[in-house]
Amino acid sequence: MTGRPTLAVVGATGAVGTVLLGILSQRADVWGEIRLFASPRSAGRKLTVRGEETEVVALTEDARAAGVFDGVDIALFDVPDEVAARWVPVAAAAGAVVVDNSGAFRADPDVPLVVPEVNAHAVRRRPRSVVASPHCTTLTMIVALGALHAEFGLRELVVSSYQAVSDAGQEGVRALRRQLSLVAGTELGTGPGDVRRAVGDDTGPFAEPVALNVVPWAGALCDEGWSSEEMALREETRRILGLPRLPVAVTCVRVPVVTTHSLTVHARFEDEVTVDRAREILATAPGVVLCDDPASGEFPTPADAVGTDPAWVGRVRRALDDPTALELFVCGDNLRKGAALNLAQIAELVAAGPE
Amino acid sequence: MTGRPTLAVVGATGAVGTVLLGILSQRADVWGEIRLFASPRSAGRKLTVRGEETEVVALTEDARAAGVFDGVDIALFDVPDEVAARWVPVAAAAGAVVVDNSGAFRADPDVPLVVPEVNAHAVRRRPRSVVASPHCTTLTMIVALGALHAEFGLRELVVSSYQAVSDAGQEGVRALRRQLSLVAGTELGTGPGDVRRAVGDDTGPFAEPVALNVVPWAGALCDEGWSSEEMALREETRRILGLPRLPVAVTCVRVPVVTTHSLTVHARFEDEVTVDRAREILATAPGVVLCDDPASGEFPTPADAVGTDPAWVGRVRRALDDPTALELFVCGDNLRKGAALNLAQIAELVAAGPE
Ligand SMILES: NC(=O)c1ccc[n+]([C@@H]2O[C@H](COP(=O)([O-])OP(=O)(O)OC[C@H]3O[C@@H](n4cnc5c(N)ncnc54)[C@H](OP(=O)(O)O)[C@@H]3O)[C@@H](O)[C@H]2O)c1
Ligand SMILES: NC(=O)c1ccc[n+]([C@@H]2O[C@H](COP(=O)([O-])OP(=O)(O)OC[C@H]3O[C@@H](n4cnc5c(N)ncnc54)[C@H](OP(=O)(O)O)[C@@H]3O)[C@@H](O)[C@H]2O)c1
Repeated sequence: MTGRPTLAVVGATGAVGTVLLGILSQRADVWGEIRLFASPRSAGRKLTVRGEETEVVALTEDARAAGVFDGVDIALFDVPDEVAARWVPVAAAAGAVVVDNSGAFRADPDVPLVVPEVNAHAVRRRPRSVVASPHCTTLTMIVALGALHAEFGLRELVVSSYQAVSDAGQEGVRALRRQLSLVAGTELGTGPGDVRRAVGDDTGPFAEPVALNVVPWAGALCDEGWSSEEMALREETRRILGLPRLPVAVTCVRVPVVTTHSLTVHARFEDEVTVDRAREILATAPGVVLCDDPASGEFPTPADAVGTDPAWVGRVRRALDDPTALELFVCGDNLRKGAALNLAQIAELVAAGPE
Repeated sequence: MTGRPTLAVVGATGAVGTVLLGILSQRADVWGEIRLFASPRSAGRKLTVRGEETEVVALTEDARAAGVFDGVDIALFDVPDEVAARWVPVAAAAGAVVVDNSGAFRADPDVPLVVPEVNAHAVRRRPRSVVASPHCTTLTMIVALGALHAEFGLRELVVSSYQAVSDAGQEGVRALRRQLSLVAGTELGTGPGDVRRAVGDDTGPFAEPVALNVVPWAGALCDEGWSSEEMALREETRRILGLPRLPVAVTCVRVPVVTTHSLTVHARFEDEVTVDRAREILATAPGVVLCDDPASGEFPTPADAVGTDPAWVGRVRRALDDPTALELFVCGDNLRKGAALNLAQIAELVAAGPE
């Protein structure tokens, strides 16, 4: 790539796309032309990037034939899995390196799964010209965990999630806001099924009402009762950390938070750990903010972390009954580091070229 | 006790007390006289029990001197810890067996900590005439866990909680309802600190806003960054199951749910377990409802469990990397089995006398 690389953003109108345009706007001197794509529903919409109004192009056969990907150096995809599966190879065939945020390629051994703070080196081997960004739940914890792993050697993980609704896109956010309007100002939440009756059948992209509720389900059904997001967290963590047999137990739970995932993490390491050393590592790890002083009411919450870039880590404790294990509570904005920011970081790594 | 025993309910006006009066009203033939007590703030208020209006008596030195506890066979206490610490011994000295729902006596080796489905026998040895009921978080999981332990032998626990606001009493419920009214119908929850600014400093009994948020803190600060509710879950589980060295790792997190706690449980047992046998145990265990068919969208949520008596258990899976471990998601109404119902059950055990 000579000069400033040309960028395509596919899914520019979505929850992730919107945040991505904001992030790209703050990096004025990195990219050349930026082209925006979405579905035919958004054709002709104008969005602002780096202060300029830019028209959204519909991703269609005609557009492809007209060469909309010609000259694109890097394409960032933020679209549903099936759309990515169809169009990522098209953009790659047109010569772009694609950085994909969907689940379509994350398990492909020929597609590196990259978190720049943890395994930047992996971005170099990309035989399909595709790089995948992990699922937002994995991204919530992986930067902090990677830093601890580098020193202590991870041996086992038990994770529970508190996942925000925006990881189901704009539709998820609309569902929660609609439900909140129905339950606020009422006495609901104390009788069997009262919230469900108030919310009605329209629970949006979720299996159950999320207002005044928590829902222990995220993704599709896999074998033996596991959900796809639980399986993904296990597989992606293993790939990114290079620990193909790491035992990972996880339960994914949806909570009525708009944006920012939280996770409790019980992490067992090779040898004894100390909280002091763990804190030092976390306090200096790039992309991590240590927020951990319960005596003065300091611990991370989504309300603090939302809209910010780093993973916020707190409640750092050594397990009372196991000197090799740590407990953590981690919050991270699922649209920023959990999606758009990681994409932008990977794109910059790719643009920087081999070194 | 001859004839129907006389009952006192101390804290009759509270979140737990209110539910307790409802439960007692459904057991018309168990109790004789029922006397109601609360703070001087509630003196003279009339509450309905078993269809009868009953005046609330203020718990004061004068009342004590006037013999308000005389003739009381069993006294159920649902008051803050410091009030229980002061008045439970008074009621016991007046001849009542006290069943206490506060944290004041739960760690006292001379006070049995009782869950009728799990360790009913323990109620018989009560040298101080006091029986304690566990914290609601422990109660959420302990009935299901006790049943699994009886067959498989528990060896280790990792637990994360999703705790409802009503475990901080009426004040907790008011705080969430007020905050919901402030955030519903807005676009809040996407910018740093926007929820906090909207909620202001009045976060009620919680360290942080709970609307559109989750807060990884419950209770007071103990050693090494642990919270009192985390320590309590560990100590109480060990006592009730008779496993004084059981390794328990736990993180307690507050969520914007009015009533009903949820817990993710990673439980490791002595030997290999099977999901089929675990399900059989849970499906037949008294006080447990198995709600576990993700293929048809069946898993427990607070919206289903609230207002009902049993523990709802779902998402039963065997750990993918450890044939001796099970994952569970459990929901239980923190005011019913988590408090009032367990008290009423213990009171009936006591009233039934030794055998
Ligand atoms: N939200 C998160 O926290 C998160 C985190 C990590 C990864 N992801 C992944 O990122 C992707 C996008 O998620 P999102 O939350 O931004 O979803 P979203 O809000 O629903 O947005 C979807 C985007 O895809 C576009 N799109 C849909 N069908 C298309 C088609 N046939 N051709 C071209 N564009 C099409 C939409 O355009 P229109 O507006 O024209 O429909 C929109 O721009 C998904 O794969 C998701 O799993 C999301
Ligand atoms: N909520 C739960 O999920 C839950 C579960 C398990 C255990 N517990 C425990 O149960 C107890 C009660 O909890 P709650 O949630 O019902 O609290 P709450 O809603 O705040 O009610 C407190 C009750 O205590 C009474 N009280 C306060 N000070 C008193 C005094 N000096 N003398 C006599 N009565 C006094 C109050 O009477 P007034 O109305 O007159 O102030 C009220 O009836 C606490 O120890 C709590 O930790 C609660």
